[in-house]
Amino acid sequence: MSEPSGERNPWRRVSSRVVYENPWMTVREDQVIRPDGQPGIYGFVQKGAATGVVAIDDEDRVVLVGQWRYPLERYSWEIVQGGAEPGEDPLVAIQRELAEEAGLQASHWERLGGLIQVSNCITSEEGYLYLARGLSPAEGATPDPTEELQVVRQPFAEVLARVDAGEIEDAMTVIAILRAARLRDAD
Amino acid sequence: MSEPSGERNPWRRVSSRVVYENPWMTVREDQVIRPDGQPGIYGFVQKGAATGVVAIDDEDRVVLVGQWRYPLERYSWEIVQGGAEPGEDPLVAIQRELAEEAGLQASHWERLGGLIQVSNCITSEEGYLYLARGLSPAEGATPDPTEELQVVRQPFAEVLARVDAGEIEDAMTVIAILRAARLRDAD
Repeated sequence: MSEPSGERNPWRRVSSRVVYENPWMTVREDQVIRPDGQPGIYGFVQKGAATGVVAIDDEDRVVLVGQWRYPLERYSWEIVQGGAEPGEDPLVAIQRELAEEAGLQASHWERLGGLIQVSNCITSEEGYLYLARGLSPAEGATPDPTEELQVVRQPFAEVLARVDAGEIEDAMTVIAILRAARLRDAD
Repeated sequence: MSEPSGERNPWRRVSSRVVYENPWMTVREDQVIRPDGQPGIYGFVQKGAATGVVAIDDEDRVVLVGQWRYPLERYSWEIVQGGAEPGEDPLVAIQRELAEEAGLQASHWERLGGLIQVSNCITSEEGYLYLARGLSPAEGATPDPTEELQVVRQPFAEVLARVDAGEIEDAMTVIAILRAARLRDAD
């Protein structure tokens, strides 16, 4: 077995094939030479950027979306989120999602911390988080027919308390709210 | 299109089949009736629990593991993590990982906040985070041959600064360090 030697790639890709795909994700299985020099496989999900926004109104309330999460078979309250199309600017994607899911646009946008590796064992999905202020109704928003959403606004302090209590479980939402809380503490 | 009506499941599963599997994950594709009443599909990854631990030594240093993350094609510094076997207690799984990856055991363990939905659009994977103290060498640890790791210890304040700076990108690690920081602030 080889010894660790800095931040190098110890895997070697021999070949790669698509083993499943649908409009939302692609599953690849690569034939590889593993770090120990033996042949093996690596299967993972290819997926575009995930985006999310802590949208805060003039009364310091966060826009939260409630929806059924099919893979987990339970209901989840989250910040506004959505996937970027291939090659799409994540900011454009999340602005579209804010309009589609909440019927809102925002006058001020900023990144909320760095990139997130969502689940780096099994997917190439990367997350981009934003903070948005100056909310107003968006025109011409068209909901996604595969979604059934509830949209509410809740004071930031209450949302943070729900994150601390474990009532809000979605990883991107937890990270976004905890990052926003740190920014506020630093102010 | 139906109107939202509380935290109910608006999806109906018609059938379910495995479209891909390997020893680490199963991909299912379900035939469904969507929230809008139309037929459709839902593909997602079935995977056991993800576990992670903020292991802190008597000098307030966090055990960090560096490894190449194949799906993202880059190097990542993270807390000790690993997947639980089907039906395995997540605490037992992470104790094994701490021994295998870092050669350590801990005398004191506690949960670090609630469950995490890792990426609830595409996977049923759920994350369990822990805080561990009282570190000592573990006996009989056997490394996983598919892994090539670097293990270091870094003061908690420096790890938190790396999370804030976006140098640490792994979602479970970001959540764990931010949760641990909140606990320390509350003390």
